[in-house]
Amino acid sequence: MAPDKIVNGVNIDQLFNAIDLFKEKPDLALFKFRATNKWLGGTHSRATVKDFYGPGQEDTSREARSYDLDEPPVLLGKNEGLNPVEYLLIALSGCITTALVAHASAKKINLRGVESRFEGDIDLRGFLGISPDVPVGYKEIRIYFKIDADLTDEQKEELIRAGEKYSPVTNTIKNQTPLSVHLDKT
Amino acid sequence: MAPDKIVNGVNIDQLFNAIDLFKEKPDLALFKFRATNKWLGGTHSRATVKDFYGPGQEDTSREARSYDLDEPPVLLGKNEGLNPVEYLLIALSGCITTALVAHASAKKINLRGVESRFEGDIDLRGFLGISPDVPVGYKEIRIYFKIDADLTDEQKEELIRAGEKYSPVTNTIKNQTPLSVHLDKT
Repeated sequence: MAPDKIVNGVNIDQLFNAIDLFKEKPDLALFKFRATNKWLGGTHSRATVKDFYGPGQEDTSREARSYDLDEPPVLLGKNEGLNPVEYLLIALSGCITTALVAHASAKKINLRGVESRFEGDIDLRGFLGISPDVPVGYKEIRIYFKIDADLTDEQKEELIRAGEKYSPVTNTIKNQTPLSVHLDKT
Repeated sequence: MAPDKIVNGVNIDQLFNAIDLFKEKPDLALFKFRATNKWLGGTHSRATVKDFYGPGQEDTSREARSYDLDEPPVLLGKNEGLNPVEYLLIALSGCITTALVAHASAKKINLRGVESRFEGDIDLRGFLGISPDVPVGYKEIRIYFKIDADLTDEQKEELIRAGEKYSPVTNTIKNQTPLSVHLDKT
């Protein structure tokens, strides 16, 4: 049996097998991701992630990982961790990068390096309830990708468009994603 | 001079001073948050956050913090970190918690504990480009909050609604947030 084909560190045989499998059995493409959070006082909280669901079963094989969230002193915190809107940029950064690299790998385009930077604008009058007209969330997020590969700028642009198009976090942000918050009475 | 009033670990004098300041000088409410990302091979990348802008100046006082992002083996990775859509839930978890606690504190409601759990559904046929009709991002995110305080369920529900309403990450996800991805040719 030939060894699996690896491009940019991505096993593209496994990638194409997954595509074939999910075409045949769409239920196996349904994943559930989860986090828990515990408030630690003031603006400080700790989130923990361990299990997820998919494909077709619970996956409990990973160790739990915890992440502290806080605000800098100017935003009433003690810098015990990054703030939530910074974690959102982290999520976005890894997601577009992975989507871009997976897309390039599927097309057998070799990449030497991918670096990116992210900046988002927030007007805190929204969060503080000062002005109902001011958006509470990010007003705009700007992203810049630098790609080191033997490609023209047009080909790099194509990769960036693919990364944006197939990134779950980007799509969660750009579209109106349904979100429901419930009181847990247990 | 009387000491600052602290409720739930939140300095509400500082909170109300910020509200007064931003009402008077709206430009000071404009913050910019940032991240950078470097691809490390396969589905693994590392995001770093350090500086931000606001209020009215660059803040370079924090140490840089770095976070690894990867996928589990079943999603072509090596588990070098949580995956991007899990970081999104972390962002969401800290954000609603902080907004809820800040709101309670401003109303001088004492909280003993706040815990929450988050679950989002993703159909990977979107990411893999198998079905154009399938959303690429989260199809739905469900959130459950448990609040330990001397409050009725109705009062707890009110706090949860406030947390949801004033959370920047929630609003970034629920609304269509403008996002632009550019090729950095430098």
